[in-house]
Amino acid sequence: MSDQTHELITLLTDFGTSDYFVGAMKGAILSINAQARIIDITHDIPAYDVHAGAWTLLNAYNSFPRGTVHLGVVDPGVGSERRALVVASRDYFFIGPDNGLFSYVYERESDCRVFHLTNKKYFRPTISRTFHGRDVFAPIAAWLTKGVRPEEFGEEIMNPVRFPSSLAPTKREDGTLDSAIIHIDRFGNCITNITPNDLSDEAIQRGAHLLIGDRVVRDFRRFFAEDANIDGELFAVWGSAGFLEIVAARRSAAQILKAVRGEQVKVIFHAKI
Amino acid sequence: MSDQTHELITLLTDFGTSDYFVGAMKGAILSINAQARIIDITHDIPAYDVHAGAWTLLNAYNSFPRGTVHLGVVDPGVGSERRALVVASRDYFFIGPDNGLFSYVYERESDCRVFHLTNKKYFRPTISRTFHGRDVFAPIAAWLTKGVRPEEFGEEIMNPVRFPSSLAPTKREDGTLDSAIIHIDRFGNCITNITPNDLSDEAIQRGAHLLIGDRVVRDFRRFFAEDANIDGELFAVWGSAGFLEIVAARRSAAQILKAVRGEQVKVIFHAKI
Amino acid sequence: MSDQTHELITLLTDFGTSDYFVGAMKGAILSINAQARIIDITHDIPAYDVHAGAWTLLNAYNSFPRGTVHLGVVDPGVGSERRALVVASRDYFFIGPDNGLFSYVYERESDCRVFHLTNKKYFRPTISRTFHGRDVFAPIAAWLTKGVRPEEFGEEIMNPVRFPSSLAPTKREDGTLDSAIIHIDRFGNCITNITPNDLSDEAIQRGAHLLIGDRVVRDFRRFFAEDANIDGELFAVWGSAGFLEIVAARRSAAQILKAVRGEQVKVIFHAKI
Repeated sequence: MSDQTHELITLLTDFGTSDYFVGAMKGAILSINAQARIIDITHDIPAYDVHAGAWTLLNAYNSFPRGTVHLGVVDPGVGSERRALVVASRDYFFIGPDNGLFSYVYERESDCRVFHLTNKKYFRPTISRTFHGRDVFAPIAAWLTKGVRPEEFGEEIMNPVRFPSSLAPTKREDGTLDSAIIHIDRFGNCITNITPNDLSDEAIQRGAHLLIGDRVVRDFRRFFAEDANIDGELFAVWGSAGFLEIVAARRSAAQILKAVRGEQVKVIFHAKI
Repeated sequence: MSDQTHELITLLTDFGTSDYFVGAMKGAILSINAQARIIDITHDIPAYDVHAGAWTLLNAYNSFPRGTVHLGVVDPGVGSERRALVVASRDYFFIGPDNGLFSYVYERESDCRVFHLTNKKYFRPTISRTFHGRDVFAPIAAWLTKGVRPEEFGEEIMNPVRFPSSLAPTKREDGTLDSAIIHIDRFGNCITNITPNDLSDEAIQRGAHLLIGDRVVRDFRRFFAEDANIDGELFAVWGSAGFLEIVAARRSAAQILKAVRGEQVKVIFHAKI
Repeated sequence: MSDQTHELITLLTDFGTSDYFVGAMKGAILSINAQARIIDITHDIPAYDVHAGAWTLLNAYNSFPRGTVHLGVVDPGVGSERRALVVASRDYFFIGPDNGLFSYVYERESDCRVFHLTNKKYFRPTISRTFHGRDVFAPIAAWLTKGVRPEEFGEEIMNPVRFPSSLAPTKREDGTLDSAIIHIDRFGNCITNITPNDLSDEAIQRGAHLLIGDRVVRDFRRFFAEDANIDGELFAVWGSAGFLEIVAARRSAAQILKAVRGEQVKVIFHAKI
């Protein structure tokens, strides 16, 4: 990242908003840099759900201005030997545990450098075993906005933890595409890892369709509100995250499909050209 | 509105706080104006409940300083032909879909000018079908704080969508007042559209009372805590929003009354003077 | 407190985030001091739960920088004769109702001065009976950030309301310690008022254990993730708030113990030295 720094720090956690955790973390940032401006992305990631955290971060981080520090704490292994990281991409910093939370960032931002946070000089003087959000990650975020370079916090590492899953579907020899549901949102919409690069408008017009278990989805629409008269009818729509979503009019598609994250979605193309 | 602008932008949505939507919208604002200061009013408007959004906005917007930009996204019709608007009142800007969300603003602020957002130059380069909060409304809010005038965004229109319902009760020939429950809050308190102008202290002292279905409410109190010893007892109290509320000691008045929004509340005056 | 003031105001309430209350309070602050920077600690204190509010405030307030104004509104007695307060400690201001909400602050900060807010000049021109958060507390917070001294708001008082409970366990003549569960968090972790000063590592190694009802807890661990293989197994861990917590691997310790706040926890020391 360039030398440009500014004072924006976003927060993404699974702390919920009913405990003192978020408040204490904000205080820890502001006591180091009172000029920092803290932006809540969400504190309602399902507890310990690193995948959901990674997904949410993927869809929020790059709408922020260059130089923003993204602080992500979904950290079931807090207190164990898991490493604490700062990731420097071309435009952003990411701080959090080394448990896959930044998998999609590594996949999207090819030029990431990853540093293992070990320099206790930049931590809170007393470090609890259970609250590294306040004691490790928040101080590092604040120091970054004060211009400290990531190299100062610890050694660069080459093997950060990454999910086995990926944002890219796999093309099979029979011409079908193996893709997956990578996220289910609170409305039960099933977000796949299929992008317009994998499935063109032309292919759809020629009859391409989706297979999830024994359910076929052939109905592609332009947006949610369109002709959505029949409750529970399944259809596919390009979502705001840039992926194909399987949704249902006024109902949970996940419930109708009995689908969970990771569920396979097969794309069948109608005919070869 | 005067030429005075500053950097305050409030957010009111039904996005919830567990998805990436709010974060992406904040990022979209800050990438256009990194100095904007974003204030969350709420993201917990019940999904698609435009009435609840309008009510909540009504009770928050005018405590903010002059020049504040209020961004409201409760938008069941996103992606359809519904218009996107900026509303300029004497003191504030309002941005959001043209679906009634600003009905109470139009009723309270007599001098509103309403513009149809069509100038794509101020939108996000790629506009999704389902997330105008990030792609249309957030950028417009940011440009307003940078001093762009509402006329720049599109044509003025004269027929924005308004609710049929109103903040003003109707006086009947028999001297009674037809009013209504316009909101039910999370405690089950039933907020009517009755103000002190409709029902004076004097009238109450002379025995005016309320009729909701077959229930009579004769008990008017000064505040919640007063003599509230009997659980579930219904009474009326002037609420902090300036309207008469029907409430119950430590219970949901809506549940006791089996009342829904829109329910008629009749005011019976005891005697003519 | 010193003459140093700055513009940070934290909010801690039981208003929830689905109504207009939080938004209106933020607006009320910003209309007096548009430069104020508002930090949400939480709005999800359980309704009317002054104890939970006090606990949460205890664990958040002192991570903030010197001069921060902490605004706390958990106020079941709003509209009654309960007093409104500003508390000035060495480093912070606290504003809220006189109902015990600041009990732990008084216990931790020995040099507090407490003022009864009576000077209507600094309130909102019209004061509702039910929403002092917006009409009394928010304006006072804003005026403090503008440099108004607490003496200006009303008389100093010597008898603010305090909880009978305390952060300090009682030593009994038989050498045991009477302590208590002072908070149960949303995961069901039971936080006691036992600190490392009350129960040393040495005593633990010599066999000290806990008695809650007829349940014995002998298992002390360094952190949550350690050996936590058996679901529902109870153990004790030093929590991030600095107190001993009784927790269970992936389950609610409170549910297993059928414990409520206030529940006695006896510390039995194995042997005299």
